[in-house]
Amino acid sequence: MQEQHAWSGRFSEPVSELVKKYTASVNFDLRLAEFDIEGSLAHATMLHKAGVLSDADLAAIRRGMADILSEIRAGEFDWRVDLEDVHMNIERRLTDKIGDAGKRLHTGRSRNDQVATDIRLWLRAQIDAIVPLIGELKTSLLDLADEHADTVMPGFTHLQVAQPVTFGHHMLAYVEMLSRDAERMGDCRRRVNRLPLGAAALAGTTFPIDRHYTAELLGFDDVCHNSLDAVSDRDFAIEFTAAASLVMVHLSRLSEELILWMSPRVGFIDIADRFCTGSSIMPQKKNPDVPELVRGKSGRVVGHLMALITLMKAQPLAYNKDNQEDKEPLFDTVDTLIDTLRIYADMMRGITVKPEAMRAAVLQGFATATDLADYLVKKGLPFRDSHEVVALAVRHAEGQGVDLADLSLSVLQGFSALIAEDVYVVLTPEGSLAQRDHVGGTAPAQVRAAIARHRQLLG
Amino acid sequence: MQEQHAWSGRFSEPVSELVKKYTASVNFDLRLAEFDIEGSLAHATMLHKAGVLSDADLAAIRRGMADILSEIRAGEFDWRVDLEDVHMNIERRLTDKIGDAGKRLHTGRSRNDQVATDIRLWLRAQIDAIVPLIGELKTSLLDLADEHADTVMPGFTHLQVAQPVTFGHHMLAYVEMLSRDAERMGDCRRRVNRLPLGAAALAGTTFPIDRHYTAELLGFDDVCHNSLDAVSDRDFAIEFTAAASLVMVHLSRLSEELILWMSPRVGFIDIADRFCTGSSIMPQKKNPDVPELVRGKSGRVVGHLMALITLMKAQPLAYNKDNQEDKEPLFDTVDTLIDTLRIYADMMRGITVKPEAMRAAVLQGFATATDLADYLVKKGLPFRDSHEVVALAVRHAEGQGVDLADLSLSVLQGFSALIAEDVYVVLTPEGSLAQRDHVGGTAPAQVRAAIARHRQLLG
Amino acid sequence: MQEQHAWSGRFSEPVSELVKKYTASVNFDLRLAEFDIEGSLAHATMLHKAGVLSDADLAAIRRGMADILSEIRAGEFDWRVDLEDVHMNIERRLTDKIGDAGKRLHTGRSRNDQVATDIRLWLRAQIDAIVPLIGELKTSLLDLADEHADTVMPGFTHLQVAQPVTFGHHMLAYVEMLSRDAERMGDCRRRVNRLPLGAAALAGTTFPIDRHYTAELLGFDDVCHNSLDAVSDRDFAIEFTAAASLVMVHLSRLSEELILWMSPRVGFIDIADRFCTGSSIMPQKKNPDVPELVRGKSGRVVGHLMALITLMKAQPLAYNKDNQEDKEPLFDTVDTLIDTLRIYADMMRGITVKPEAMRAAVLQGFATATDLADYLVKKGLPFRDSHEVVALAVRHAEGQGVDLADLSLSVLQGFSALIAEDVYVVLTPEGSLAQRDHVGGTAPAQVRAAIARHRQLLG
Amino acid sequence: MQEQHAWSGRFSEPVSELVKKYTASVNFDLRLAEFDIEGSLAHATMLHKAGVLSDADLAAIRRGMADILSEIRAGEFDWRVDLEDVHMNIERRLTDKIGDAGKRLHTGRSRNDQVATDIRLWLRAQIDAIVPLIGELKTSLLDLADEHADTVMPGFTHLQVAQPVTFGHHMLAYVEMLSRDAERMGDCRRRVNRLPLGAAALAGTTFPIDRHYTAELLGFDDVCHNSLDAVSDRDFAIEFTAAASLVMVHLSRLSEELILWMSPRVGFIDIADRFCTGSSIMPQKKNPDVPELVRGKSGRVVGHLMALITLMKAQPLAYNKDNQEDKEPLFDTVDTLIDTLRIYADMMRGITVKPEAMRAAVLQGFATATDLADYLVKKGLPFRDSHEVVALAVRHAEGQGVDLADLSLSVLQGFSALIAEDVYVVLTPEGSLAQRDHVGGTAPAQVRAAIARHRQLLG
Repeated sequence: MQEQHAWSGRFSEPVSELVKKYTASVNFDLRLAEFDIEGSLAHATMLHKAGVLSDADLAAIRRGMADILSEIRAGEFDWRVDLEDVHMNIERRLTDKIGDAGKRLHTGRSRNDQVATDIRLWLRAQIDAIVPLIGELKTSLLDLADEHADTVMPGFTHLQVAQPVTFGHHMLAYVEMLSRDAERMGDCRRRVNRLPLGAAALAGTTFPIDRHYTAELLGFDDVCHNSLDAVSDRDFAIEFTAAASLVMVHLSRLSEELILWMSPRVGFIDIADRFCTGSSIMPQKKNPDVPELVRGKSGRVVGHLMALITLMKAQPLAYNKDNQEDKEPLFDTVDTLIDTLRIYADMMRGITVKPEAMRAAVLQGFATATDLADYLVKKGLPFRDSHEVVALAVRHAEGQGVDLADLSLSVLQGFSALIAEDVYVVLTPEGSLAQRDHVGGTAPAQVRAAIARHRQLLG
Repeated sequence: MQEQHAWSGRFSEPVSELVKKYTASVNFDLRLAEFDIEGSLAHATMLHKAGVLSDADLAAIRRGMADILSEIRAGEFDWRVDLEDVHMNIERRLTDKIGDAGKRLHTGRSRNDQVATDIRLWLRAQIDAIVPLIGELKTSLLDLADEHADTVMPGFTHLQVAQPVTFGHHMLAYVEMLSRDAERMGDCRRRVNRLPLGAAALAGTTFPIDRHYTAELLGFDDVCHNSLDAVSDRDFAIEFTAAASLVMVHLSRLSEELILWMSPRVGFIDIADRFCTGSSIMPQKKNPDVPELVRGKSGRVVGHLMALITLMKAQPLAYNKDNQEDKEPLFDTVDTLIDTLRIYADMMRGITVKPEAMRAAVLQGFATATDLADYLVKKGLPFRDSHEVVALAVRHAEGQGVDLADLSLSVLQGFSALIAEDVYVVLTPEGSLAQRDHVGGTAPAQVRAAIARHRQLLG
Repeated sequence: MQEQHAWSGRFSEPVSELVKKYTASVNFDLRLAEFDIEGSLAHATMLHKAGVLSDADLAAIRRGMADILSEIRAGEFDWRVDLEDVHMNIERRLTDKIGDAGKRLHTGRSRNDQVATDIRLWLRAQIDAIVPLIGELKTSLLDLADEHADTVMPGFTHLQVAQPVTFGHHMLAYVEMLSRDAERMGDCRRRVNRLPLGAAALAGTTFPIDRHYTAELLGFDDVCHNSLDAVSDRDFAIEFTAAASLVMVHLSRLSEELILWMSPRVGFIDIADRFCTGSSIMPQKKNPDVPELVRGKSGRVVGHLMALITLMKAQPLAYNKDNQEDKEPLFDTVDTLIDTLRIYADMMRGITVKPEAMRAAVLQGFATATDLADYLVKKGLPFRDSHEVVALAVRHAEGQGVDLADLSLSVLQGFSALIAEDVYVVLTPEGSLAQRDHVGGTAPAQVRAAIARHRQLLG
Repeated sequence: MQEQHAWSGRFSEPVSELVKKYTASVNFDLRLAEFDIEGSLAHATMLHKAGVLSDADLAAIRRGMADILSEIRAGEFDWRVDLEDVHMNIERRLTDKIGDAGKRLHTGRSRNDQVATDIRLWLRAQIDAIVPLIGELKTSLLDLADEHADTVMPGFTHLQVAQPVTFGHHMLAYVEMLSRDAERMGDCRRRVNRLPLGAAALAGTTFPIDRHYTAELLGFDDVCHNSLDAVSDRDFAIEFTAAASLVMVHLSRLSEELILWMSPRVGFIDIADRFCTGSSIMPQKKNPDVPELVRGKSGRVVGHLMALITLMKAQPLAYNKDNQEDKEPLFDTVDTLIDTLRIYADMMRGITVKPEAMRAAVLQGFATATDLADYLVKKGLPFRDSHEVVALAVRHAEGQGVDLADLSLSVLQGFSALIAEDVYVVLTPEGSLAQRDHVGGTAPAQVRAAIARHRQLLG
């Protein structure tokens, strides 16, 4: 039955079955259904206000859409691939229910501006779900940081022991990253939250529409100011996916660390059993599956970003069918991000920290060498010279297999006559930490201040 | 019920539901089911030959697996997410059916080498389906080329008319690309077709296995020669996806051309209605949806390539859970490629060529200017000088709004005294074509020879 | 001479020459030199205020740096690869000039926070150059739009003629895209403009630094609030490169259109000779090289984005040498973007529009079919029904080889009795345009209003 | 001076300076110079054989090109940006030297087929340099593997101790990866080694050329069989960059491991000082800069792959200026790969292995648990049951803080009555290793056999 298509009158042969399957989107775009209905209702309300739809038509459309929404929510709606997409499925059902009023709903719009509106409504709702999930993960990290504001661990650069930090301070680094991620989501939302409806196919419509009113009904901040751009713009999807990629990059970094820290030679943490799995062959294994999967899934989201950019590159205006391919990468990006944030917030509450292993690692790596150098600078030696003195002292201690704090005063004085008994204070991890007492430094007091600041920002 | 996991004995709390869902793969890896069974049967046969499995065990395994295969094919198999993946689902079902013999099947292997084997068996089968589909598309293009071996069209560089070619010659360019694609698929297959089974978890097994025998049973060319590499190698997936990306790049190029050629100002071709769709708002529209979607889907496959590379980058040996993320990009790449090749082979048979529009375009663009230059060279002028002469003649003709062939002999001779009456032969499109008569040139005779060569290679 | 390295005392053998070359960055990071000096001077001023540097030291540092800056600007500075990077080159030169005061400059900082500060200062300056360049390109486009606010051209979807638009309206679509690009640059700048200095190597420093004062001296809005994050964060580089990729995607879209429009069969525009090149073999060619290169360079910038994301993925905290690889992609992204924006603003001023070709194309594609449908809707027919009526009329006209406006009233009435004489008004391109008179629509009045709005926003 | 361009006669205004700089390639393509001359000489020889060039012309061209080659090698050639590219620079210089004969060299070719030929000649030479460098790195790894064929280390999955392997076996995993990389380079070379020359601008030439003869002169295996494809095909560059990306992914994986292994808590290896650097602030640091940079540079090469794919996506035939952007990513990929392979081969010879740390790690992780499970299977327990027994035993031992081998026989028998005194043999790392004695297994005998096999293949 040909007339099922929105565009069939001009065609002399029906679309082949393979083509129908290849071009249909209803299998994945049905998740837009509620937003499609929301957009249609606002459009109808505006058309009515503009005098294009009668009172009766508007009432019929509202009644019909309410029925359809119930059917969809109850899982009783019969989605048909031969009707191509979510929009035609709903419109056909509406027309079956209410007749000509349903046919009149499409007045002054096109699928091009309709789908653009649906995706924006949907993505806005997703961002509004994601930002609080980022907040929950930050709260998990802040709780952990609070508990371990004094817990000494080695700070690494190049995976070599560098200087002592606290585990709380380390967790706060990720809180900073996630704060920027939430900022970016907010910035992206501003560009998502503009109304394309009214662009119609590409040039606007001849009906006396009031786009600002529709925007107001749907909670949009503004309208898209050019109709050609409105139907072809997918910047917001690319910008969102880039922001999501950064979240995943951050979580892949934390995952990398969790995996390292749980490796038995490192042994800094344990992850609760409920986030780990075992091996089908090695009975002793407890594997940090969740962080590994998160690390892996960062590739997935980055791949979607690449797909979307490649998709848009060099497309002429205005709408091209290529754009239908924007949905699956975007949907999967959102799903991956939401699942990952949720599981991560939960998992971080299941981390057991092993302070003794962390402290032992600090003592293995000459972590207070910089403190000795700073000590000498404060006694008057230029930094570059004191650096050289300490380098030689470290080389000596390493040869002896001992820490700097284990060298006798006379041995230390052999490297510089400026060294006195008070040096041993700065050679302990706690002494080292306490001195880094400025905004952003690892001193426990600073860590606690940073936690308080973030808690206040989270509200 | 905890004991459902392959690894549960060591754990003090069950895996959370969210984690189960996040880490389970059975929703997508069930498509490996038949290959999993094939691999298991070969493994059992080898274990039996090695004296590890009894006659009775082997018989029971074969019988049980035959049942399970029937259940799967009949759609009656009950896939359970709490059993994580396709392997555990099948093994559990086997053990339910045949008891201890089922438990003995996992002797001398691990899920790590099992899944690696399954994917290779599956991908080998897909490549063996893809190569003939490439062949079918080549045949479509060869048929079209044959029909239009003499059809003049403008050859473009920079989308400017350059020189006349034939439409057949143009189609053959894509036949060349696809031939390289098929070569790459064949090269990739050699690296896919190696047996990881026997690597067990990562180090090999203590059982007296015969890996070459298993390889022979499964039709593998060789075994993977290092167990650590065998379980962590996903090169073949990346290589395949890179090769698939090139196929999609080629088809996106052809799609770009089809879309241009069908644009009304160009009007070189028409695409059969069954591959096009219309507009919900513009009744006159006939849109080349299929080529546009193909162009768009190239982004999808490239995204998967990026995902897989990002996934593998900097992973330590041997198996990590990250690798579970290899499947969905690979599966979707194969699905996209197969659907696209199939629809393209069909669509190219529905192309209508409009020779008159092509010929008109040739005459619009001074396409035989190079022929005039070559003509002068043959009369003794150095190429660079003749190029300059013709450039000035073109500038003159353009100013007059006429083609070079429309200039009178005396006007032409004003640019070079070497020009004589015989020049008009080389200034026609057909004269131009006929002279490019060497291997790879656009002369109709060469086009026909190239078609014959490809047909012979396709067998 | 070993002591040339900042870290040599501990090492028993010198770095190999190949390694020096492989790890050195001075060949590309010397472009940070002025920003490095600016950062060092602010750091010295702060150290002096904090009582760490004496008056004499500060004066010496300022004098020495002024000399060095002169040497660099005069091209007389001797950059040495064996000093690794820009920072060590400048510091060594300073110490050669002013002795111990130079060595004291590195007090309370590390190369990790120093390089992070330099890149941010540099990138901030680049963004501050890029935003006005985007503005200049917008101005070029607005001028062109103004000139052609009434020029009829076919609006395309699927590269098929859809509805009439004006060329001015089409240009404004790109103005919208560029406006979003400028917004994104501004958002990114907020995250760039935070001070990492004070993080030292990774944990902060034991000296009594005042980071807010340094931030103020350097014009930063805030400090980075966690030292570990401060030295490892490269989000801003990724975010910038993503924003730059979108600019390039937009310009590749416009380039695609310019190339199409200049193709002889389309013939909508001409590009001034000074932006085109010819062919070494085909004397008649005039190639749109600049848009083609821009289209190609979009790949370059996207590649850099992927490089940076891949770089950061799964890096443990804090600083790793991997991060040195952030610079070249970022530098090349900025260079490409700045050159492209500059050449594009100039090129768009060299576009010649051919209104007659555009109008001819409108008449070839049943561009006013939607207007007929809307006409019928206004006469009471539901949209879906009127769509079907017009589809049949188009099919008829196409069979006759004429436009809808060429059909007689009686023929038109054969498709619907609702059609009357007044239909011919809406069937002209100008009639069609004039009716799309709402915000974002293509009516010339709306186009002019949009131009005025953008001009005001540009200031 | 306008006439410097190869195509100037038709143009009414010169190219702007900004455009010249933006479109010129001579700054980077001059590295093709020797290959350009090689290709030109073969072309001239063929033209002479075909009767197109006289004896005198050929002699002049050969003499002129010999001079130019000397000038280039001596660094005395004056490359001019206003001549755009390497080809025009050389041709102009030749014409300056030998007059009209130089102008005749361009007969029957175009820059399009010329540049395609140059890149293929160049890339073939690079592949021929890369494959032996891969071989050298394999030799480094084989030497290390040989030395440590018996050295016990923990095999990891999920970065948890899984089973004992030998360090030699672990090194061999990378030898396998690199062997596949060399295979891929060889496969790619076959597709590189085809002659585009003769395609001229896009359609072939009217001169009686003999492409097979030119191919023979240049050592090509075949000609490109379609002229349109010949000038637009960049598959080989994408395929090469994909293969190079895989090499970099492999080396980034090895780098990740080296960095981990050198981290003090792991302490499995040391890297010679000459491959490490220190810190400007932390005197004790010795950083594995080279592996970190390699890990970082994997992003660079992957970025180039994405750039090239994005570049080619949806380009219409035949040559477009976009393609000029193929060179820099390809050149930098080759440079990065060659430098990295060279430094890696050297660095692996500077690795110090610490067997005692590796052995200690094996004993920390219940690495022989699988051996106990296999032991029970051999005594008749089904694998899945024995897995469960061992899981409980591990849980018990972990609670006691001891290894399985430290449990008394009676305790072990409490988990299964099948356990006897002989169990302690399989619970040692050496016992575990020795039993994995099949192709690809980690038994030292197998490791030595694999080394011998690879040495033989390397020749």
